[in-house]
Amino acid sequence: MRMYDIIMNKRKGNELSKEEIDFAVKGFTEGEIPDYQVSALLMAIFFNKMNKRETADLTMAMVKSGDEIDLSKINGIKVDKHSTGGVGDKTSICLTPLVASLDVPVAKMSGRGLGHTGGTIDKLETFEGFSVELTEDEFTKNVNTINIAIMGQSGNLVPADKKLYALRDVTATVDNMSLIASSIMSKKIASGADAIVLDVKVGDGAFMKTPEDAKSLAQEMVNIGNALDRETIAVISDMDQPLGYAIGNSLEVKEAIELLKGNGPKDLLELTLTIGSNMLVCAKKANNVEEGRELLLQNIKNGKGLEKLKEFVKAQGGDTAPIDNLDLLPKAKFVEPVLAEKDGYITKIKAEAFGLIAMELGAGRATKESEIDLAVGIVLNKKRGDKVSKGDVLAYIHSNGEEKIEKAKKDIISNITISDSYDLNIPVIYEIIR
Amino acid sequence: MRMYDIIMNKRKGNELSKEEIDFAVKGFTEGEIPDYQVSALLMAIFFNKMNKRETADLTMAMVKSGDEIDLSKINGIKVDKHSTGGVGDKTSICLTPLVASLDVPVAKMSGRGLGHTGGTIDKLETFEGFSVELTEDEFTKNVNTINIAIMGQSGNLVPADKKLYALRDVTATVDNMSLIASSIMSKKIASGADAIVLDVKVGDGAFMKTPEDAKSLAQEMVNIGNALDRETIAVISDMDQPLGYAIGNSLEVKEAIELLKGNGPKDLLELTLTIGSNMLVCAKKANNVEEGRELLLQNIKNGKGLEKLKEFVKAQGGDTAPIDNLDLLPKAKFVEPVLAEKDGYITKIKAEAFGLIAMELGAGRATKESEIDLAVGIVLNKKRGDKVSKGDVLAYIHSNGEEKIEKAKKDIISNITISDSYDLNIPVIYEIIR
Repeated sequence: MRMYDIIMNKRKGNELSKEEIDFAVKGFTEGEIPDYQVSALLMAIFFNKMNKRETADLTMAMVKSGDEIDLSKINGIKVDKHSTGGVGDKTSICLTPLVASLDVPVAKMSGRGLGHTGGTIDKLETFEGFSVELTEDEFTKNVNTINIAIMGQSGNLVPADKKLYALRDVTATVDNMSLIASSIMSKKIASGADAIVLDVKVGDGAFMKTPEDAKSLAQEMVNIGNALDRETIAVISDMDQPLGYAIGNSLEVKEAIELLKGNGPKDLLELTLTIGSNMLVCAKKANNVEEGRELLLQNIKNGKGLEKLKEFVKAQGGDTAPIDNLDLLPKAKFVEPVLAEKDGYITKIKAEAFGLIAMELGAGRATKESEIDLAVGIVLNKKRGDKVSKGDVLAYIHSNGEEKIEKAKKDIISNITISDSYDLNIPVIYEIIR
Repeated sequence: MRMYDIIMNKRKGNELSKEEIDFAVKGFTEGEIPDYQVSALLMAIFFNKMNKRETADLTMAMVKSGDEIDLSKINGIKVDKHSTGGVGDKTSICLTPLVASLDVPVAKMSGRGLGHTGGTIDKLETFEGFSVELTEDEFTKNVNTINIAIMGQSGNLVPADKKLYALRDVTATVDNMSLIASSIMSKKIASGADAIVLDVKVGDGAFMKTPEDAKSLAQEMVNIGNALDRETIAVISDMDQPLGYAIGNSLEVKEAIELLKGNGPKDLLELTLTIGSNMLVCAKKANNVEEGRELLLQNIKNGKGLEKLKEFVKAQGGDTAPIDNLDLLPKAKFVEPVLAEKDGYITKIKAEAFGLIAMELGAGRATKESEIDLAVGIVLNKKRGDKVSKGDVLAYIHSNGEEKIEKAKKDIISNITISDSYDLNIPVIYEIIR
């Protein structure tokens, strides 16, 4: 088998065989096939696409390129959750203890964030002492006893994806649905998930800018899951404004705790219930999503979700005091209101811009080496559709640098559109693909 | 400027600017842009094509990547001739002295062949002592005095093309008309040609398999010439059977000399007259091709073309005795006839296969290091359309190894089709594009 022929096949629009895909992925991972041949293949894939079978084969070839996590010692159906990423997305923080409180085993591998705010691990480190450095035994034991544990991604998980992504990133071959979908799904499958609920974000602050693209990515991932016998459900959710009100690590943790206390923002609650109910169905803990929603709402009301969060944080060495007393969470030195400059309805809060503003305040990492400031960020006071009068507080800037406030204010003002009327109809959840 | 954006532009189907093309070619040649980005760009070019302007700019960017030969000290309009390559193509050997005998300055850079038979230089080395190691002064002086000189390609001519071709060759991005055309034209322009007559071969033994493809390549090259102010004419000629009868170095030289003596095969003569008359028009030595043909035929008849070949060979140190006495040319030890196994009409002589058979006999180089055997090859005795009876000689094998003869015989038999009737109408010249 020659890589040349594989490139030529795809260039001609032919279907690649499983053997050809395995050959290319293995050869590239092991350094035997040079990157200039792989980038030519990637560009040919961009133009001629891959079908369902090829995409599933590519996913498995990537899974096989490195270690696979064995979760067989964990009882029950392991349901993983993945979001394609958005601004203000703290869903994992409230969702995972909530479903764990309903007996779903949550055995999660997570990474640190590179971008607007930290990743789930960074956010959880808001609880002093919290650590994801668990041994495999501790991890298994925690999930089997309290139904939830989170571990840093370690070992050699899907090395083919790392190499391929790095190459796609510099050769303008990122945005192909098969390549994006197989990249995400290979990591979930290598992490040992039996079932996967995906949150595919759509809008200004998401990678997928249109509902059509989001749907097509969602369908692609569901196809992969089906082909590889992992029940997969994709929720398409709005990212045309930040999710909830808080953007920034401890600010988001606070909002997630508030949700578990029954005071969560409407959109965050709706997304949590939608993803959570589907996870419950996958895990066979609910017969249908309606029942799942009821169970989740119950465990918010009765405090079992919050209790589970405490158990979880404690089990991984974190200080649980801030969960009871939110004032103990890290706080920024300066909290500055941003005021509306005119009357009207908020028709747009540019999510991506808000992510960047939060990053400039110190909430995110620009490079791998950057330090995250857990305390800083933005808390919106109004959301899309709200009526405001000149002088109303639009948002609060939480900053540890006084000099950063002016620019943040200007940026916030210019990224919130206030119009005379509001007649948009953007849902929190667009569609569910299964 | 970033290479990423250039790839993305072409991927989206946008036109690349001259600056973008220069940036990519220069960066790649100088090793600053990695090959994995260039191969992605090449594949994007394959799918989204380049327009006339981009193709001309790519050609000039390649020309500028290395040295350019300065022919300004040579008087007159320097007309170069280039063939896309075929089996049995000895046109340069007879054509160049013939046009030189009509006062067209022929200042030719030539390479050694890699493939079925040697290149023009290899063939000319059939004349003992012949050397292409001329200084620039000698080269200029020879052209200015006897109108013809040939020099080995030296120096750093179009390094971008060498690098690009090597990359295209392993990434399935060879067969794009803009890339093929700019590769050929950049070398001609860097060699200092004022005008160029191209012989684009079409058929089984050529790179272009169909008249449509040949026409499109021809048009592409003519467009480049026009855009860059070099008068360019492309002759599309048949390569669905070998050209003339002889395949192999000294065998081809012999046939070329025979042509200058008035005994050339019909197809070789027709091609020589067609290319030659167009060269005469470009050089303003004839008012039209009809006049050009007359002049060429005259100089065959009166022996001036043959005389010029002798002058040329002598000026570059070669022994001219074989020109008068063809028996002095290198000869193979074994000459074996191949006989027809049935009656009928020859409908097909697979040119590519004959090239390979000649190479296996030792006439060509499989690798750069291979030694060429000047004496060996094949001489056809019949051509397409000829009527044959069982037992007629189809061809003669010239070999220096007795053990090679049997396989060559078998291969020749199986690559000549004899049918009950002949009703094909394949011309020697398909079309002329200017």
